[in-house]
Amino acid sequence: MENDLNFSIQTLGENRYKSPIGLSTTKGDRIFNFVREEEKMLFDTSLEVFTRCLSDNTMPYAMEKAGPREHLFFDPAKTTAAIVTCGGLCPGINNVIRNLVMGMHYFYGVRKTLGVRYGYEGLNPAFGHELIELTPQFVKDIHITGGTILGSSRGEQPVPVMVDYLMANKIDVLFTIGGDGTLKGARALSEEIQRRGLPISVVGIPKTIDNDISLIDKSFGFETAFDIASPIIRDAHNEATGVHNGVAIVKLMGRDSGFIAASAALSMPMVNFVLVPEMHFQLQGENGFLSLLKKRLDAKHHAVVVVAEGAGQHLFADGREAQKDASGNIKHNDIGDLLQQEIKAFFNAQGYKMTIKYIDPSYIIRSAPANPGDSIFCSRLAYHAVHGALAGKTNFVVGMLNNCFVHLPISQVVRERKKIDLEGEFWFAVLQSTGQPFLMF
Amino acid sequence: MENDLNFSIQTLGENRYKSPIGLSTTKGDRIFNFVREEEKMLFDTSLEVFTRCLSDNTMPYAMEKAGPREHLFFDPAKTTAAIVTCGGLCPGINNVIRNLVMGMHYFYGVRKTLGVRYGYEGLNPAFGHELIELTPQFVKDIHITGGTILGSSRGEQPVPVMVDYLMANKIDVLFTIGGDGTLKGARALSEEIQRRGLPISVVGIPKTIDNDISLIDKSFGFETAFDIASPIIRDAHNEATGVHNGVAIVKLMGRDSGFIAASAALSMPMVNFVLVPEMHFQLQGENGFLSLLKKRLDAKHHAVVVVAEGAGQHLFADGREAQKDASGNIKHNDIGDLLQQEIKAFFNAQGYKMTIKYIDPSYIIRSAPANPGDSIFCSRLAYHAVHGALAGKTNFVVGMLNNCFVHLPISQVVRERKKIDLEGEFWFAVLQSTGQPFLMF
Amino acid sequence: MENDLNFSIQTLGENRYKSPIGLSTTKGDRIFNFVREEEKMLFDTSLEVFTRCLSDNTMPYAMEKAGPREHLFFDPAKTTAAIVTCGGLCPGINNVIRNLVMGMHYFYGVRKTLGVRYGYEGLNPAFGHELIELTPQFVKDIHITGGTILGSSRGEQPVPVMVDYLMANKIDVLFTIGGDGTLKGARALSEEIQRRGLPISVVGIPKTIDNDISLIDKSFGFETAFDIASPIIRDAHNEATGVHNGVAIVKLMGRDSGFIAASAALSMPMVNFVLVPEMHFQLQGENGFLSLLKKRLDAKHHAVVVVAEGAGQHLFADGREAQKDASGNIKHNDIGDLLQQEIKAFFNAQGYKMTIKYIDPSYIIRSAPANPGDSIFCSRLAYHAVHGALAGKTNFVVGMLNNCFVHLPISQVVRERKKIDLEGEFWFAVLQSTGQPFLMF
Amino acid sequence: MENDLNFSIQTLGENRYKSPIGLSTTKGDRIFNFVREEEKMLFDTSLEVFTRCLSDNTMPYAMEKAGPREHLFFDPAKTTAAIVTCGGLCPGINNVIRNLVMGMHYFYGVRKTLGVRYGYEGLNPAFGHELIELTPQFVKDIHITGGTILGSSRGEQPVPVMVDYLMANKIDVLFTIGGDGTLKGARALSEEIQRRGLPISVVGIPKTIDNDISLIDKSFGFETAFDIASPIIRDAHNEATGVHNGVAIVKLMGRDSGFIAASAALSMPMVNFVLVPEMHFQLQGENGFLSLLKKRLDAKHHAVVVVAEGAGQHLFADGREAQKDASGNIKHNDIGDLLQQEIKAFFNAQGYKMTIKYIDPSYIIRSAPANPGDSIFCSRLAYHAVHGALAGKTNFVVGMLNNCFVHLPISQVVRERKKIDLEGEFWFAVLQSTGQPFLMF
Repeated sequence: MENDLNFSIQTLGENRYKSPIGLSTTKGDRIFNFVREEEKMLFDTSLEVFTRCLSDNTMPYAMEKAGPREHLFFDPAKTTAAIVTCGGLCPGINNVIRNLVMGMHYFYGVRKTLGVRYGYEGLNPAFGHELIELTPQFVKDIHITGGTILGSSRGEQPVPVMVDYLMANKIDVLFTIGGDGTLKGARALSEEIQRRGLPISVVGIPKTIDNDISLIDKSFGFETAFDIASPIIRDAHNEATGVHNGVAIVKLMGRDSGFIAASAALSMPMVNFVLVPEMHFQLQGENGFLSLLKKRLDAKHHAVVVVAEGAGQHLFADGREAQKDASGNIKHNDIGDLLQQEIKAFFNAQGYKMTIKYIDPSYIIRSAPANPGDSIFCSRLAYHAVHGALAGKTNFVVGMLNNCFVHLPISQVVRERKKIDLEGEFWFAVLQSTGQPFLMF
Repeated sequence: MENDLNFSIQTLGENRYKSPIGLSTTKGDRIFNFVREEEKMLFDTSLEVFTRCLSDNTMPYAMEKAGPREHLFFDPAKTTAAIVTCGGLCPGINNVIRNLVMGMHYFYGVRKTLGVRYGYEGLNPAFGHELIELTPQFVKDIHITGGTILGSSRGEQPVPVMVDYLMANKIDVLFTIGGDGTLKGARALSEEIQRRGLPISVVGIPKTIDNDISLIDKSFGFETAFDIASPIIRDAHNEATGVHNGVAIVKLMGRDSGFIAASAALSMPMVNFVLVPEMHFQLQGENGFLSLLKKRLDAKHHAVVVVAEGAGQHLFADGREAQKDASGNIKHNDIGDLLQQEIKAFFNAQGYKMTIKYIDPSYIIRSAPANPGDSIFCSRLAYHAVHGALAGKTNFVVGMLNNCFVHLPISQVVRERKKIDLEGEFWFAVLQSTGQPFLMF
Repeated sequence: MENDLNFSIQTLGENRYKSPIGLSTTKGDRIFNFVREEEKMLFDTSLEVFTRCLSDNTMPYAMEKAGPREHLFFDPAKTTAAIVTCGGLCPGINNVIRNLVMGMHYFYGVRKTLGVRYGYEGLNPAFGHELIELTPQFVKDIHITGGTILGSSRGEQPVPVMVDYLMANKIDVLFTIGGDGTLKGARALSEEIQRRGLPISVVGIPKTIDNDISLIDKSFGFETAFDIASPIIRDAHNEATGVHNGVAIVKLMGRDSGFIAASAALSMPMVNFVLVPEMHFQLQGENGFLSLLKKRLDAKHHAVVVVAEGAGQHLFADGREAQKDASGNIKHNDIGDLLQQEIKAFFNAQGYKMTIKYIDPSYIIRSAPANPGDSIFCSRLAYHAVHGALAGKTNFVVGMLNNCFVHLPISQVVRERKKIDLEGEFWFAVLQSTGQPFLMF
Repeated sequence: MENDLNFSIQTLGENRYKSPIGLSTTKGDRIFNFVREEEKMLFDTSLEVFTRCLSDNTMPYAMEKAGPREHLFFDPAKTTAAIVTCGGLCPGINNVIRNLVMGMHYFYGVRKTLGVRYGYEGLNPAFGHELIELTPQFVKDIHITGGTILGSSRGEQPVPVMVDYLMANKIDVLFTIGGDGTLKGARALSEEIQRRGLPISVVGIPKTIDNDISLIDKSFGFETAFDIASPIIRDAHNEATGVHNGVAIVKLMGRDSGFIAASAALSMPMVNFVLVPEMHFQLQGENGFLSLLKKRLDAKHHAVVVVAEGAGQHLFADGREAQKDASGNIKHNDIGDLLQQEIKAFFNAQGYKMTIKYIDPSYIIRSAPANPGDSIFCSRLAYHAVHGALAGKTNFVVGMLNNCFVHLPISQVVRERKKIDLEGEFWFAVLQSTGQPFLMF
């Protein structure tokens, strides 16, 4: 952890309204207690850090606990909220939308919650997308299917235009559901709002199927992603064993971080190789991937390879200019294609007869409905976002840290992507499962 | 139906052995009756054909009923069977293998059933694939996963070499599980066996995920195929609605016949267009596909298109030489790619902002395990193949006709592919579901 | 087949309106042809029937083909339809409702389709259930979940009251979705309507998860039923093998007919015994069920038994008065309980240590959404019901016969329940799969 | 937390053997580091604990980190391990067995791993159950189905007899997979082994589908449990809405703790009431459950109730003697039955027409295969158990604490059951989802 971490959450002003929720302030009465501002959760849970802080007389990093506050900044009966969903699909978006609406309506009696159509485009009147009203009746069953009922788009819109639009529509709270780019946009909105001295809260709910948001345990949709990828690996195994010397490659999401690929592989022990962006493997050479693949085929006559989309980018010719999509994400060269070509070339050169099958199930995964675990997670996230927003917090995200929900400043979570620790227990478990070596070069 | 149809089944000789199965020969005792050779089932079930035959005093086409015979050609205790699986994967192969082995072993006490590895390659000793013994213990659970435990390969092997190999390994019955090419191979084997005067039965179990085998109700794996394709269409719909003017294309199997595409679309009413090989649609023009797609986007801002891989081949530049894979199947130009390009070009030319997502789930579908309906079907098919084989029938396939299992000569089922009748009730149902017009040009 | 079968369909009068659907009347133009009244489909497809008809100079039984007619009895623009769902849940009800509404609206432009709440209760104003209007927007996604969005109830309501209500609400077509009792009610309604000389069509869509409707290939929801039961049998097998001498019993639906139990068992080859209502097995005795079960445990130390709810009713003490539910169905004694008690008593008496697990998943099965196969079937059924209704047919059901949709008089389908033919190929396949003997006494 | 918590782990002696696994001892080389004995993880992660420790000058509770040690107590090449599975089924048992065998074989080259049949019975020669050898080939695919391939049993066996048996079979490491009773048995075995001065390690892998093991984040199988329960709640909702004033009750596992019921309910927002053992609700009275249920029916005419099997035991007549099963678990009175009766009586007394459906899916849930999330968890648990065992630790369990795997003394985890904190965030989330009040009396 860097020294300059700062986990204090920005607020809009004094909390003058008593919460309408009938909670407790004392333990032991079987009623949930309002969360106090001073409740915080440690970031690092190793004893080592703890004792170091004790002996150094420094404070460990800790994050503000999420939850309903006794006093609110907003008067719910006069509050209008809006929800916007940006970027690619991810299981659970509709669950989050649903439970934001339900929480605003049933917990607090918020006047109105609006849906912004098609991402940040919907906050730019130039696109002509109308706001829609999100009632409990409207959102009741939207979690049953995947996707986003609001629609989405990629890319930025002019921040002042969007703030004007929030003002024009008297929106007090904006929930933004999106990834890195979306959260940076939310931060920019928040800063412009602060500049103008407006009492508008901007809340981020981090959405990244890749699970690459820094600091937090996991992002919603990620568990569903490997849940759905898992039987596809079984299919790949069937393709691999269905022919002599069959190799099946499954490409999974993971631009900068290989969590989906690694998790899916760990859930399916027939995977022989996992390639993730965090690794710096080589194809050629005695300990390179191709030699290891050949050893595997010699021994068993089939192999299953799981590769994250961002893996092996160093294998492409230098000097190629990095391209980005409208969300600002780097558009990766297709590692799946490269692997196919290189594998074919390698074995052809040796007159070694083999067959490759290549499976890319990305759209099937990201558009699926949330599984029960993610459904639970999305509900809790949404409820905390509601509580934090009405308490006047802004420019923050809700997230889970060591199994507890906390608030984090947007600036902290967009500093860098979370990555697999190649020396951590999780990656070691993956290697134990696949049997592949630590290093491939 | 052509005039020269001939449904008589070739036999190896006199059935001298009493069946060891304790069945009945009289009705009413609650015990299944041995099937008599004269039991036949009508091919066409319309009253019209029936009365025409009655008035013309001609016999209608009818097929020999499958089932256990009272007398067998082979002495089970001295019989060795073998099973070979060829061509691409299809849900249910392992179910068929399993139940052939179980039927041979438990119903008849057949001495031994062997598994041929990697398709017809395994009958050619040049490849060095060993035969494996298939015991009930070995095959007990193989139906749980998809694929084929025997492995497969595409393409032909020299017929005399394979017959030599059958002789060398004292194989009396060969079950071939495969598609059009495989069945033609089985017919060739059968003819060579007849030429040599050998008492070897060759039985075909038609495997075509496309459901394009002539004369029969359905082939195994087909129902599982659209069962698995169905939720993928829901995913495509989520992708389409997730952006403004989103189009999602799902390409499904179907080289010559669009049954999977049409069935999957009919099971999911959010599909707006189905394109199948049987249709001769145009892209351009007032009633062409692209104009219809634009009308749909104008009205609803999203569209789902399901396309069979063999559809629209007439849209590719003439003069391109047709390529074939090792199985002899025509390798189609990629209609999915073409559609994407043409749609993009069409809308770009008009400055019409839209987004396309393209999903090709073929490997995920064909490698899946059989669903319960196909499991039942595979069991029954396998049992009938066993009964027919031991009764000394050869050069035939087992299939379902109007819900009844029958024997068909291989020569009849490989005459032509089954196709969707564009004037039939099934296709009309598809069009009623999607709302697309009969003609697109 | 009885001699007095009569498959002619009752009609309301002259068809004076030209169908608004743009279909063809000639073959070869790739456009579906209107179905002509004289098109009929054979009931029995064995060649034997042909030769018998030829020699006897009689006509075979044949049924009127379903499909759109060129001329209609009702003027769609002035027609009001209503839909009622009765009896227990069954997968696919919402699919049928959805596609009736879609067919009425999009194919014909019918003015209005109403939903009757809570079965026949909703046609009796005494209950105070309001009619609801079913628009395409309302029904668009209802097939995604199981159950019935209209609600259901069991039992009869006074026929004259219901006809009064139809008249009062100007309902021209009533679609009744229900089982035996419901169809008898529909027939009674139809007869009362005829008595009063009213131009109201009553159409039955047979709903019986048990698949026990006479004459037709299958009823909707049945395939989904065994599809869902199938993995539950795998669970039962895990329970059975999880302990020494474990017996797992799965009770499945099937009051009078064991199709679900037999199909589920055939789809899962680890089932050792299937008990269905059609069988007259004994528990005691050398060849009774209990002795066979003991032999199985001796050999393998676990066993899976699938039992239909209506099986073994002869095993309960005589003199017990048969009870009926509100639908008029006989309330069966619980064979699952009896089996458990008898098995325990049998083995206890011998000091034979074993364990029984009993699973009754009925509610889970009947409330599930339709699988893709049933979704297709429900769409086609609903479309045919729409076409038949607007053509002025009444007092009939739509059904599939030898893979073709036909009309049948309600009176014929409620004559008797369809049962498993214990001497048929299907039951023989079940016995081949389980290994149980034909007779158990 | 009690004051006398002691998290030190018992060891067998000096670790004299160098681990054969090629791991690192320095950070930064992309190779996992051996875990050092002094690495520990905090139990409580609130900042409050830090400040308290700081002011009190005390150390916080912390647990030994799991993972491979650089030096081993056992020489793998001479080590024999055994695995025993006890108690009821739970998703993931076979995954744990599989990965114990794989870890012992592939990571360490352990000589032999044996499978004990049918729980502790298999360690008592009086039962005559033979040990089986568990090879990688044997266990390769066992995770695909649920249950336990070893079989299980409930209840204790004489400890000295079992230790004699371990000695007689030269077993060095015993892995026990089971719940509270099993772990108490493991502790007793461990103590007897210590008494005899034997170098045998006893490792517990806590198995409780109820997730009620103290101190740890979760137990394996729990996530699969609510994953499978979740769609059954959707079914229940269909049953409830399928009739007028329909109430559907789903009983889920949870003897002492309602985690499955609460999680399943939170994953499915149509649940209106959750009743768990931790609650002390009343049926009667103005704020009792029955009045609340009536209000719900009045408003919406349907309701879904999820109840844990151990809920509401205080509602049964006093003086009833608590019964226990062979595992020592209290056999609860059937709260599902009681609820049905009380609900019926309550509404009947008011002449209020309503219908109840009662669903108990327990066997379907516990016998299912592990979902992908649990598969990952089981692999990691098993690997850590292997590493801990070969390092000579004994009388301990492996578990996850704040997302990190740790060792815990068996004595600590069996002190008391983990329960839902009724004042915690999780339960508050459940109440926010269902809308039910904190107190029901």
